Amino acid sequence: MDPDADGLGCGLALSQALRKMGKRTFLLDKDPVPPGYQFLPGHGDFHTPETMRSLGIGVGDFQNMILLDCNHLGRVVGAADRADFDHFQGTVAVIDHHETEKTFGHVRWVEPDMAATGIMIYALIRNLGVRITADMAANLYAAIALDTGNFRFENTTAEVLRTAASLVTAGARPHAIITELYELWSRGRFMLFREVLNTLEVHSGVAVAVVTRAMLEKTGTTSDDTETFVSFPRIMRDVKVSILLKEVEENHFRVSLRSKGAINVARIAEFFGGGGHANAAGCRVRGSAEAVTSELLARCRELKDLEKPVLEFAGRDNRAPGPSVEEDLGASQN
Amino acid sequence: MDPDADGLGCGLALSQALRKMGKRTFLLDKDPVPPGYQFLPGHGDFHTPETMRSLGIGVGDFQNMILLDCNHLGRVVGAADRADFDHFQGTVAVIDHHETEKTFGHVRWVEPDMAATGIMIYALIRNLGVRITADMAANLYAAIALDTGNFRFENTTAEVLRTAASLVTAGARPHAIITELYELWSRGRFMLFREVLNTLEVHSGVAVAVVTRAMLEKTGTTSDDTETFVSFPRIMRDVKVSILLKEVEENHFRVSLRSKGAINVARIAEFFGGGGHANAAGCRVRGSAEAVTSELLARCRELKDLEKPVLEFAGRDNRAPGPSVEEDLGASQN
Repeated sequence: MDPDADGLGCGLALSQALRKMGKRTFLLDKDPVPPGYQFLPGHGDFHTPETMRSLGIGVGDFQNMILLDCNHLGRVVGAADRADFDHFQGTVAVIDHHETEKTFGHVRWVEPDMAATGIMIYALIRNLGVRITADMAANLYAAIALDTGNFRFENTTAEVLRTAASLVTAGARPHAIITELYELWSRGRFMLFREVLNTLEVHSGVAVAVVTRAMLEKTGTTSDDTETFVSFPRIMRDVKVSILLKEVEENHFRVSLRSKGAINVARIAEFFGGGGHANAAGCRVRGSAEAVTSELLARCRELKDLEKPVLEFAGRDNRAPGPSVEEDLGASQN
Repeated sequence: MDPDADGLGCGLALSQALRKMGKRTFLLDKDPVPPGYQFLPGHGDFHTPETMRSLGIGVGDFQNMILLDCNHLGRVVGAADRADFDHFQGTVAVIDHHETEKTFGHVRWVEPDMAATGIMIYALIRNLGVRITADMAANLYAAIALDTGNFRFENTTAEVLRTAASLVTAGARPHAIITELYELWSRGRFMLFREVLNTLEVHSGVAVAVVTRAMLEKTGTTSDDTETFVSFPRIMRDVKVSILLKEVEENHFRVSLRSKGAINVARIAEFFGGGGHANAAGCRVRGSAEAVTSELLARCRELKDLEKPVLEFAGRDNRAPGPSVEEDLGASQN
């Protein structure tokens, strides 16, 4: 459901590696690969439950099932296929970096400290002794770049950058991937962005912007085009939480939340029945834009640390200057 | 002149390394460290020619001079001090990654293929046998992050990412640095950005936007606040060149140019007496905004490749799907 480059890239890379080992693989995702991710090498190998059925393939044809970047079947198949999958007789493995309390799967490798499932799959493929091809490298680089906001988020560790470097050595092209992920906006998307920026208001540390269906129509865009909009207002020093309301239908909004530092917006999303990571979460809320906004702002006001400065860089202002040398030079002049 | 994080970060890191070796150093820059870079550890050690003079220090007090991230004295001192510096009796070294035909300096280490002078200084400090401290690491990480557009530009190589990883191991904090470099916009800067976006027009592959002094006044901002604006329109698929006109005084504009791929905007900047890199250049042009825009657009129309698709990612559309497995599975069913 709503797959991103981490889920898709991991699926493709692991599938490509397993095929190199002579395994047969089948890539399944509840939704089709979004157009924005149709640059991922091999993306055409992904199937939805519908195309799977149309091929006469059923869950009984599989011996093993690996869930990547997600940890429950609800994100893999819809209601129509759920019963079949619930009765799957083979071994189920879950490889994921999303925090969860679920216990689904015979083999569970879940590391919430990992920036991306892509880091885990890179390590796995290396441990399987498979040479990383340029296609695998591009898929894993896209996975890691997406989930670290292209190395901007708190989760950007030395390991993340080292893995990215190895993937470039293996053939991934950072500029090409970043361009595909972030810099191929249509003119319409750009116009939509201008419109959304115009709705933006900041309420004591929380930025709220709205995308209506009318805006999408006017600019000839779809909801997919709003993908990265929610991150943008974080660019402001005094914005700790950024919220984007996307109108699904009248009085029904898909809500994306992003935060800085220690502020956990997953808790807010969970309150409304959604979920996610501490710094990136989502939920759906019913009501008018005004009502939804004020409900969300009320939850935000309960957050600690909203008024605390986000960043205390040791080098800024409060830092004493280092040992100075001009006195030395002055002395040597005398 | 107009120092950026690559120049400043390299100066600070190399100075810090040389001091560890017992050398005495003096950091000189024509302009003061801009507020946006006053997080760089040790930035308070930088002097301008004015503060240098006020300390009674002259160029005769130095034995060696190292120019970093620039290759002529015009960027280091103004007219008032130029004669003194031209008669400097010591050894002059130039360490830079900017393409140039100049031959200034006894020791010249100029590598236009390097993404940032920061990569070179990292290698130099390692070769000097000095342990990279957290301060040096932060300075060099900022240098590299800035000149690669935080790992977005074509110059993002495996070496760039490996160096970044090593700097994180040495204590650089990517999220903190990126926040300082890119995500501490004031409310005024955000308002200015909205205004500038509203002036944006796209003419067959070239985006042009304007910042007037009136806009700066209205939003309580300065020219420094426009720093990254010129890169933003590149986000559009059909924008190959992005140009930002910054009004210096009536009928006088500082012009920033950015391009994608093989399109060389340094040639355009040079035509108007400016310079820079292939993908990032600048110049000053006199005339009304309309006249300057049409002069620039005329030069842009002479560029080759402006109509060529910027990117041909092997994975997108034209790529044949990889070996498919559903037939195998189908066969095993029969």
